[in-house]
Formats: sequence, C-alpha cells, structure tokens
Amino acid sequence: MIVRDLNKIIEANGERVVSDAKWRSVRMLLADDGMGFSFHITYLEAGSEHTFEYKNHFESVFCMKGSGSITDIATGETHEIKQGVMYALNKHDRHILRADEELVMACCFNPPVTGKEVHREDGSYAAAEDLETA
Amino acid sequence: MIVRDLNKIIEANGERVVSDAKWRSVRMLLADDGMGFSFHITYLEAGSEHTFEYKNHFESVFCMKGSGSITDIATGETHEIKQGVMYALNKHDRHILRADEELVMACCFNPPVTGKEVHREDGSYAAAEDLETA
Repeated sequence: MIVRDLNKIIEANGERVVSDAKWRSVRMLLADDGMGFSFHITYLEAGSEHTFEYKNHFESVFCMKGSGSITDIATGETHEIKQGVMYALNKHDRHILRADEELVMACCFNPPVTGKEVHREDGSYAAAEDLETA
Repeated sequence: MIVRDLNKIIEANGERVVSDAKWRSVRMLLADDGMGFSFHITYLEAGSEHTFEYKNHFESVFCMKGSGSITDIATGETHEIKQGVMYALNKHDRHILRADEELVMACCFNPPVTGKEVHREDGSYAAAEDLETA
C-alpha cells in the first residue's frame, strides 16, 4: 500500500511538484508506482488560459474547486467548469482550459506519466502544443 | 470529449449512483468510456467501517473531505486519512477503512470497473470479502 499526503509533498517542494507561472501540478502517482495510471492534483491560476493536447495519453480531470470553462477545439463547444464537473479527453482532444477562479483539479492519465514527460512538458523539450500539465 | 457533472448525476439518481446503507459511489467514468481506467466519487458515512479487498483491480483513493483511518491488514499498519491524503492499493491490499467524519473520496480503478462488477459488489452475488465500493 502506498500512502502519500498532498500537503506534505507541497511542503517538501521536491521533484513531485512541477509548475510554471500559471499552473502547478503535484504528482501523487507516477508510472513507476505500477498502478497503470498516474494521478495528479493540478492548480491553474485565476485568470489563466491554457491550450493543451495530450497526443499520447487519455486524461480525465475532475474539478474539486474553482470555476472556468473548457473549449473543445474540434467542435468549438464550450462547457462550464465548476466543482463536481469532470471532463475526459477520450479522443486526445485539443482544448482550451480557462480558470476564472483558481481551479483545483484531480487528474488521471493513461498511460501513466513517467516523470520524463513531465520534464519535457515543463519547458525545455516539448513544443508548445505538446505541453502537459502533469 | 466527455463532460459530466457529479451533482447532476446525483440528482438523476440513476444507475451511475450505487450505494448501500453506509456508502454511496458515483460512477463518473466506467470501462465503456474507453479511458482504460474508471473514476468514481465515493462517500463513506460518518462512523462507518469497511473491510475491502480488490482482488482484480488496482485502486487509488484521494481524500477530498472528511477524516478517518486505513489499516493494512497484512502489515497491521494504520494511517490517518484526511483531506489531501491518498492511498493506492498496489498489492490488492486487504484493508479496513474507517470514516470518523464522512469521507469524500476520488477513486481510480485499473482495470476500469464495468458496471457489471458494481452490481455484483452491490449485494446479491459477491462474497463479503469481495465487495468493492465502486
């Protein structure tokens, strides 16, 4: 059994916490935990807007706190995001996520994020359209 | 893109909401959503105690609200559960979960729950030690 505490991981501020200016993600479970998925708590700054496309992953995102919206770029459809709303990117959907208030999201990835992708996502290697807040 | 609202699912009170006297689980994503995992929001009643063993699944459980404890039956070790604590059953660990206050948990299963297991889990077919709050 693995037991981890979000608040202690944030306090430690080690490699399980990844961020840029507008988002921060805490990696609660990664590929090497052997669960077959990864699990992340992600904070998106109030007023921020993000364009994401997870070409190689499915991701589900459950809103625990905050408000905003998501636009599916393929269809043009926009959905309200608030506490209790979940979206699942079952078609590797390219999308725009907007945080009106700070969003706190519980995110699952399949296949699991390894940590290597996270470093790529976090700036130096990945193209902008390949960024992943994980 | 799949978009679902926990509160609307609870209001509708259809087959996505499963419960017994001491817990209720809302199935946000099931196997047929094609994500490769399932995702559930589960409520465990204050004062309740549950013995679970997921013989065929890995499960991670993130505490969004409430307080309690979990005992790993194999090791005898007990861990405090509170907001921000996650446990992951990476060894199909048989365990006792206690809710001191109502627990609200975000749960991921791999392989994904299909709904068929849920009916089994929900009473008529499953042996007690095989119960799964999913």
